[in-house]
Amino acid sequence: SSSDSSSQVKPEADRKQRGYETLVVTSEDSITKIMMNRPAKKNAITTQMYNEIMLALKAASKDDSAITVLTGNGDYYSSGNDLSNFTDIPPEGIEEKAKSSAILLRDFVDCFIDFPKPLIAAVNGPAVGISVTILGLFDTVYASSRATFHTPFSHLGQSPEGCSSYTFPKIMGPAKAAEMLIFGKKLTAAEACAQGLVSEVFPDSTFQKEVWTRLKAYSKLPPNAMRISKQVIRNREKEKLHAINAEESRVLQERWLSDECTNAVMNFLTRKAKL
Amino acid sequence: SSSDSSSQVKPEADRKQRGYETLVVTSEDSITKIMMNRPAKKNAITTQMYNEIMLALKAASKDDSAITVLTGNGDYYSSGNDLSNFTDIPPEGIEEKAKSSAILLRDFVDCFIDFPKPLIAAVNGPAVGISVTILGLFDTVYASSRATFHTPFSHLGQSPEGCSSYTFPKIMGPAKAAEMLIFGKKLTAAEACAQGLVSEVFPDSTFQKEVWTRLKAYSKLPPNAMRISKQVIRNREKEKLHAINAEESRVLQERWLSDECTNAVMNFLTRKAKL
Amino acid sequence: SSSDSSSQVKPEADRKQRGYETLVVTSEDSITKIMMNRPAKKNAITTQMYNEIMLALKAASKDDSAITVLTGNGDYYSSGNDLSNFTDIPPEGIEEKAKSSAILLRDFVDCFIDFPKPLIAAVNGPAVGISVTILGLFDTVYASSRATFHTPFSHLGQSPEGCSSYTFPKIMGPAKAAEMLIFGKKLTAAEACAQGLVSEVFPDSTFQKEVWTRLKAYSKLPPNAMRISKQVIRNREKEKLHAINAEESRVLQERWLSDECTNAVMNFLTRKAKL
Repeated sequence: SSSDSSSQVKPEADRKQRGYETLVVTSEDSITKIMMNRPAKKNAITTQMYNEIMLALKAASKDDSAITVLTGNGDYYSSGNDLSNFTDIPPEGIEEKAKSSAILLRDFVDCFIDFPKPLIAAVNGPAVGISVTILGLFDTVYASSRATFHTPFSHLGQSPEGCSSYTFPKIMGPAKAAEMLIFGKKLTAAEACAQGLVSEVFPDSTFQKEVWTRLKAYSKLPPNAMRISKQVIRNREKEKLHAINAEESRVLQERWLSDECTNAVMNFLTRKAKL
Repeated sequence: SSSDSSSQVKPEADRKQRGYETLVVTSEDSITKIMMNRPAKKNAITTQMYNEIMLALKAASKDDSAITVLTGNGDYYSSGNDLSNFTDIPPEGIEEKAKSSAILLRDFVDCFIDFPKPLIAAVNGPAVGISVTILGLFDTVYASSRATFHTPFSHLGQSPEGCSSYTFPKIMGPAKAAEMLIFGKKLTAAEACAQGLVSEVFPDSTFQKEVWTRLKAYSKLPPNAMRISKQVIRNREKEKLHAINAEESRVLQERWLSDECTNAVMNFLTRKAKL
Repeated sequence: SSSDSSSQVKPEADRKQRGYETLVVTSEDSITKIMMNRPAKKNAITTQMYNEIMLALKAASKDDSAITVLTGNGDYYSSGNDLSNFTDIPPEGIEEKAKSSAILLRDFVDCFIDFPKPLIAAVNGPAVGISVTILGLFDTVYASSRATFHTPFSHLGQSPEGCSSYTFPKIMGPAKAAEMLIFGKKLTAAEACAQGLVSEVFPDSTFQKEVWTRLKAYSKLPPNAMRISKQVIRNREKEKLHAINAEESRVLQERWLSDECTNAVMNFLTRKAKL
């Protein structure tokens, strides 16, 4: 299905932005596309990828594109936080690691809260963890029929981030939000759409073609009207969302040092190493 | 289908209220019905109709009816703001025009925010622009299967009003609200119902009959209980909604003077004149 | 269908908690189950049952269970407030009765707002009135396909409680919430699920088995992570919900003394006596 999109674009050399190792960032047709590019690792988000996504969002907020799109290369949208991040303990110890991780998480989510133009997620496959929770901060979310949405926080001894403790109950009601965020229920694309997390689902075989056709049409609309409309919709909640993000990050920093979390992450990495 | 309702009512002379040119306002069975009545113009809302709807709502808030219904005569519910409003520039110039239009818009929406009894929309056909955005301020919204819901603000270089920048994300989640409000996606009646903007959809052939049968039953319930229940549900947000309405109107006043907006409206009126 | 669950549990004597007359409260597998137990009265909630549920919730908040479940014995989940509560007028008169009833209601709802662990409703059959309105305070709501959801406040001259004037519009949008809360529309289980009030519906024939299988799996997740996740999701709104509960109870206290309410309740009890 990747041929659907590549057939419609200029040669890579003309448009690909340099300097990213974990992303492919391109700009054309008034659209900046940020593609997570660790397909062999299911686009798990390493510390480097967190930093590069922030850089790419900051650049996109200032470039002359009308809309910005986040998507993933390969079978997955993103498997979420790369748990190997947890094993890279600095000499200062795990408390310092938890602290710096919480700062990174908070800065990352803040970039989504503050993004000034219409931001679209093209969820090309399964999405896990933080790649799911931040969807509540996007303006439109398209999903392939192959996509799933999964936030197994409790399984890993952790708690919600990405402002999902606020946006998910608001979007789908507390009874459906808590089953995802507390009990880790996995949603299909159709379920996520019925519950308002996703704007529309497309068959996987035509996902790229249908999404990009639509986005190219949207990108031709008056850009100032779109930016100002987004701000009228979103600015009212910015301060609140920043406070929620700070609180979620603070709670998670404590969680990362708990026995429940360290045991669960250890078990996960051990099982993975045995495969 | 209009015979469905007229067969159940008294002769027009007995019940029709005088003094309205763009509306037909009737009161009986504890129901006040405000019908937009410019069917040849798809019930586009002129300055006069804005003023008459405000008058009718103020009268209905004080009469002895239990519930109030807004609907449209003919094929359309309403095509929204009559764009010919934009061409009627006073000698004081377009800045003065934008200012007075913003005041009119704000006063109009305030009447819906403040309406003290259960307010029902009977959406008999396509609804566009402000006739859609204010639906978030109604207590119940019935739609014919022929109805559609469309807010092409960006196409016209404009931005959301009617408190929709607040009510729509709250009702349907940001991912579905932004596709409507920023990208102008048109919803079918079934989609609007699935997303919570509409309470229930009826087949067009039985729409009038089913809606009025149900409303007559509701109008027999204890009126004070209904009014107080509405107030318990709504009063908490009134102050917030008034502030949002003021902000949306202020942003729109600026938008109306922008090149994006004047070019888009000019194009629309030129195309229409050529038909 | 009760055999589905009882086949998987220890003998009653081992686990049933003493001291409840209107409830059966059991704890095992890290789950505390509070079952309303007046099946011959459709689990209508008497003053005694209000008090016992509060006691059971306070005990469950401190026991070593990971999650707590509220359900009903027999065909009904609960028919809501037992209207015979209205006939038990103390010597001090009906004003004093309305006052003490409002205090009881407020205290009851406060227990749900403050409950610190994941709280699940297993709605085994029809639910009416306050057993419906407090569902917005639960973290997950499972419903049998036989369940219905009905809040006939206006019919009884009353107004919404259980924080439903806030949670219902937030969950399902104002157009669907008002039809329930103001006009008393009854929802099927499937409708309640589509509107976000219910997390998932199970066929009645397998309801007990499927719900308890799932809950037993959830109860094995790290309990601190679940409790902290719930708090991150819910604590932000606690103060607001307490204020709303106080306001709803105050309005209802006045309603109970109104002619509309006393006439409606009298009619209800007279009709019932004649059956």
